[in-house]
Amino acid sequence: MPFPWGPSLMRRMYRSWSGPIRKTAPPLLGSLTRYLMLSTQRRISDFNSFVVRTNTCGELRSSHLGQEVTLCGWVQYRRQSLFLILRDFHGLIQVVIPQDESAASVKKLLCEAPIESVVQVTGTVISRPPGQQNPKMPTGEIEIEVKTAELLNSCKKLPFEIKDFMKKTEALRMKYRYLDLRSSQMQYNLRLRSQMVMKMREYLCNLHGFVDIETPTLFKKTPGGAKEFVVPSREPGKFYSLPQSPQQFKQLLMVGGFDRYFQVARCYRDEGSKPERQPEFTQVDIEMSFVDQAGIQKLIEGLLQYSWPKDKNPLTVPFPSMTYTEALDLYGTDKPDTRFGMKIVDVSDIFRNTEIEFLQDMLKEPQGTIKTICIPGGTKYLKSKDFEVIKKFAVNHFNQEVSPLFLKTSGSGKSPFTKLLKEEEKTALISLMGAQEEDVLLLTAGEHKKACSVLGKLRLECADLLEARGVVLRDPTVFHFLWVVEFPLFLPKEEDPTELESAHHPFTAPHPSDIHLLYTEPEKVRSQHYDLVLNGSEIGGGSIRIHNAEQQQYVLETVLKEDVKLLSHLLQALDFGAPPHGGIALGLDRLVCLVTGVPSIRDVIAFPKSFRGHDLMSNAPDYVSPEDIEPYHIQVRRPEVTDRKDVKSVICETESSQQLVLPSLAKTENPLEKLALGQTPELLERRKSSKYPDNQ
Amino acid sequence: MPFPWGPSLMRRMYRSWSGPIRKTAPPLLGSLTRYLMLSTQRRISDFNSFVVRTNTCGELRSSHLGQEVTLCGWVQYRRQSLFLILRDFHGLIQVVIPQDESAASVKKLLCEAPIESVVQVTGTVISRPPGQQNPKMPTGEIEIEVKTAELLNSCKKLPFEIKDFMKKTEALRMKYRYLDLRSSQMQYNLRLRSQMVMKMREYLCNLHGFVDIETPTLFKKTPGGAKEFVVPSREPGKFYSLPQSPQQFKQLLMVGGFDRYFQVARCYRDEGSKPERQPEFTQVDIEMSFVDQAGIQKLIEGLLQYSWPKDKNPLTVPFPSMTYTEALDLYGTDKPDTRFGMKIVDVSDIFRNTEIEFLQDMLKEPQGTIKTICIPGGTKYLKSKDFEVIKKFAVNHFNQEVSPLFLKTSGSGKSPFTKLLKEEEKTALISLMGAQEEDVLLLTAGEHKKACSVLGKLRLECADLLEARGVVLRDPTVFHFLWVVEFPLFLPKEEDPTELESAHHPFTAPHPSDIHLLYTEPEKVRSQHYDLVLNGSEIGGGSIRIHNAEQQQYVLETVLKEDVKLLSHLLQALDFGAPPHGGIALGLDRLVCLVTGVPSIRDVIAFPKSFRGHDLMSNAPDYVSPEDIEPYHIQVRRPEVTDRKDVKSVICETESSQQLVLPSLAKTENPLEKLALGQTPELLERRKSSKYPDNQ
Repeated sequence: MPFPWGPSLMRRMYRSWSGPIRKTAPPLLGSLTRYLMLSTQRRISDFNSFVVRTNTCGELRSSHLGQEVTLCGWVQYRRQSLFLILRDFHGLIQVVIPQDESAASVKKLLCEAPIESVVQVTGTVISRPPGQQNPKMPTGEIEIEVKTAELLNSCKKLPFEIKDFMKKTEALRMKYRYLDLRSSQMQYNLRLRSQMVMKMREYLCNLHGFVDIETPTLFKKTPGGAKEFVVPSREPGKFYSLPQSPQQFKQLLMVGGFDRYFQVARCYRDEGSKPERQPEFTQVDIEMSFVDQAGIQKLIEGLLQYSWPKDKNPLTVPFPSMTYTEALDLYGTDKPDTRFGMKIVDVSDIFRNTEIEFLQDMLKEPQGTIKTICIPGGTKYLKSKDFEVIKKFAVNHFNQEVSPLFLKTSGSGKSPFTKLLKEEEKTALISLMGAQEEDVLLLTAGEHKKACSVLGKLRLECADLLEARGVVLRDPTVFHFLWVVEFPLFLPKEEDPTELESAHHPFTAPHPSDIHLLYTEPEKVRSQHYDLVLNGSEIGGGSIRIHNAEQQQYVLETVLKEDVKLLSHLLQALDFGAPPHGGIALGLDRLVCLVTGVPSIRDVIAFPKSFRGHDLMSNAPDYVSPEDIEPYHIQVRRPEVTDRKDVKSVICETESSQQLVLPSLAKTENPLEKLALGQTPELLERRKSSKYPDNQ
Repeated sequence: MPFPWGPSLMRRMYRSWSGPIRKTAPPLLGSLTRYLMLSTQRRISDFNSFVVRTNTCGELRSSHLGQEVTLCGWVQYRRQSLFLILRDFHGLIQVVIPQDESAASVKKLLCEAPIESVVQVTGTVISRPPGQQNPKMPTGEIEIEVKTAELLNSCKKLPFEIKDFMKKTEALRMKYRYLDLRSSQMQYNLRLRSQMVMKMREYLCNLHGFVDIETPTLFKKTPGGAKEFVVPSREPGKFYSLPQSPQQFKQLLMVGGFDRYFQVARCYRDEGSKPERQPEFTQVDIEMSFVDQAGIQKLIEGLLQYSWPKDKNPLTVPFPSMTYTEALDLYGTDKPDTRFGMKIVDVSDIFRNTEIEFLQDMLKEPQGTIKTICIPGGTKYLKSKDFEVIKKFAVNHFNQEVSPLFLKTSGSGKSPFTKLLKEEEKTALISLMGAQEEDVLLLTAGEHKKACSVLGKLRLECADLLEARGVVLRDPTVFHFLWVVEFPLFLPKEEDPTELESAHHPFTAPHPSDIHLLYTEPEKVRSQHYDLVLNGSEIGGGSIRIHNAEQQQYVLETVLKEDVKLLSHLLQALDFGAPPHGGIALGLDRLVCLVTGVPSIRDVIAFPKSFRGHDLMSNAPDYVSPEDIEPYHIQVRRPEVTDRKDVKSVICETESSQQLVLPSLAKTENPLEKLALGQTPELLERRKSSKYPDNQ
């Protein structure tokens, strides 16, 4: 692996800003130009303005032959005492270490500088001798004949090498994040993120007249909004809250006549140690006046199309749309991964006259159904142990029986259930499911939603498993966007199903056709909320808002039984000429994570926290002195003995790398083992972790 | 005042994005195009995409005659029952209320909709009848013949009218911020801010290859960094801190190979009730590797030139530069307002052989000097009461005698001191100062720095006073940028002058010529820090940083006596191949405030806090329930009785508008009265409110 910084990622970086590299392009064309050319700008970014270098290491080509250049970079490695490979964010360049007496000091410096030291060299771009070119290295046709060299900073022995093929533990990467950032993958991720956001800004601000407005992050507690960090103020007992989204402010901006607002907004949520969550995250927050749902959707489709990296397949718009009910019925989730089939099929009708008792019983229940998904090639790829795990999982997490149904007429692996089936039932099933002989059906009987949920979850897990066994189900270069619409406005409260809570947040407007139901059967009201789903992940959500003060008050007070005093400013604002308005928020971290194809959002955040909310590099949060908190009229309440365990386990995190390996990093493992470990599935009905923010 | 939304500010808005309006331009040219054209984009922002309106109210001109348009806006006012004036962010349009029977419902709606209600109208653009055009109104040649109208939202009785000429108290504006935002001034301010930031991003990201990287705001306490908000974590006794700047992170990004970083960063500082400070503020944060001071300065000059609003006079670069010592000597401050003269002159030499005893004595002291400033036309514009206030102020705040010196040979107003002067002393003074007969000199004798400080402060106050009396000293359309350089690296600690503290922050590199002094006479070391000053306000500051771990450790441990453990991650990072680097941060709120010429930074922030840190609209910070803080292992420490006063005064703020009138709002008052009120002047040596952040 001589050039970890060479072909693969660098080519991706090139492509990301300049369209696909044409393989037929002569190398003399200079890929820097393409690299630097922002597709719509038609301007070249100058990476060498204001600094001592004349060129980046990675940009040099045969077209620079004979030029005297000054380069600054890190010592990647040395080959004998002959060549030094210098690296900057842009790539690698070979520097020839001079061997003659007159350049002894330069030779000494270049030979002795430890790996990852920072070096400045001045010299001439020359051709590599015939036969010594390296076609795998973008700068592989040339090298630098060095005249002067300076050691800008020497590097001590590193905890790990900055080479892409070096596997580092997650804990080590986090502790030395500044070293991890030097990897070509992290350089690619954060630069791509910056570019995407810049393109979004151009689209919103320059093309469509949106105004970028900053809203406060020192706010007050949102009613019902749990999981908000508190910030003590200098007034005893009074606290700010770090908001989960700028929801109230963006609505107030609409009332204030800023009819097109956006903000790349920092948001906060204290969710303890939930994996794949960060205590602070970023959303692209948007709100418009005089707009309907279709308008917002069109805006977002245009936004993503415009900002989509050039090294990915271009997006097709409009994105498909699906109602919440359809999503549940077909995929058992409100964020379906539509990249592959295996949809849920209702097979109740086949069993209307069945003699199998438990199916009979279920169909007599209200909402009782029989549902199936088909695992293509299930007989071939799944083992009987896998089916045991599947069944156990369904019972443990959904309290639901799931039966595998083998379609093969002969051979092993027949389940007891298969034997119970009548031949005509089996034929009807095969026909309805379009199943092949080697497929396996997973069948469950139960209440509609529950049956869909369990099969929806198993659909995803079986897909992971099939892929782990080598089946190609989802093309990693394909991006499936999907709108999910017509959510219910309210859901029964988990703790007391006779009461209602907002499915998303209390500012969501009811569906125009359902407004009359608001006052009679609120549980039946559909909302004007919409989610944007990408490859089975929710990456955005928004709604048309209530702009009528009376309706808002009714929802808050009568339906949700909230204390309206906390929102009196918003209710009053609606009374003072609030325009009709709506908006959306995109989860930027998640979006960039999916676009770059990295396993975790931590890979697209410069300085992420661990899943316990720790910064392993600086050791935040940390103990403070009593004087530090004295102005805030608070004191630390020492935990009871029973709390101690918690403290200890937290301390462990910084000491052991084990605890940092999150499930998402273990994707290539057998996903069913993951299931068997008893990891809680995301509960469909409680999917929204918070009632208030637009997103996530 | 029929058209508050008309000429003045609208013209400023036009100009800001399209260059000055040529008065000779025929109205048919369509100023919308000019308004919407972003000067470098050459693209037209579409304000009507995705929404129900076809046009904005303010964009319509004679060129739209005959077009059917749909407009959405707020009812600005009605003229009899004949015309309704509709407003959006873009401007005003006259809608003709139909009088015929067939349109009775439209007439009723338009006649009855309360002021500030939200209305949608569809109709045809027609010419106003001859003689009824309004040349003061950009849309004054046309009106809308309405076909249909819809009341989108009715408005209740407002606490104040949305008219620019309506004076509102600051407290009322803050309580109903969403109404205040509808004013043309606030629309202009926030839209200009958005545009400036967008241009900065284009310059940094698109033209110069900077990477926009978000850094955490949940961090840990900075050593020595007082005034940081704390955020309790779920671990007993451990707190996050809200950082005052991304200083550490941007340096770590340099170590991580992101050699051109920028971020429009939210920063936090808890300064209680300091006027003109906000608990959260925004800085344009920049860092580069392989750069020197000149490089950063050139970058910033280019950045400001590129992003400068088109309705202001273009900037000339490079900006002038001045050393810290010069600034002190000539202006008595490190942020000189160079828009006018009245510089401090050392007149010690004139008095070497004086017979005036207190001058003799002072010149014998170490650093003893005699300094003067000249108030042009002082005899004419200042009253003897003014001079009393000046003298009292100098004594109260600087413990320094200041004597006015009247140059008129005859007439009243002669000071006792004038009589003591020998004729040749007087002649020499007049000659050295270039003074005229009607001028007044302010003379003080004292230790060099102290003498400069008091005169520097009086120079500004006298300038305000002269301007209040009608003298034109500073052209409001002129912007004077100035670099102040060669600051000392360390200053004696206020509480113990035998110890040193950083003049700015401990990461600032020493001046290359002074490095040897670091180990012998650190108090003499100049730094590589630079401040950017605009019209006498510091709007930015930065430095070349220490990139050598040993030097950094020496500064922290030996010179500053800080606990290096808190910064071990940074010290370690410097050891692992940190490139030479430097950067700067611009205070965005202050910059936009100066550019828009508004009295307070609150006028360029959408939802600012009061000077006590309150959001008067939502009433943040607020009391929380014990359950809300329970997970954070803290409890509220109820204040002693002596604290009660503080609580009470805070509550007053929300009840009384009086307390919100800040000194900056009272600029037109006699500034000397302000002095006499005993407001503390900013102390020169303690000017930096914090040691750590790059800016403010």
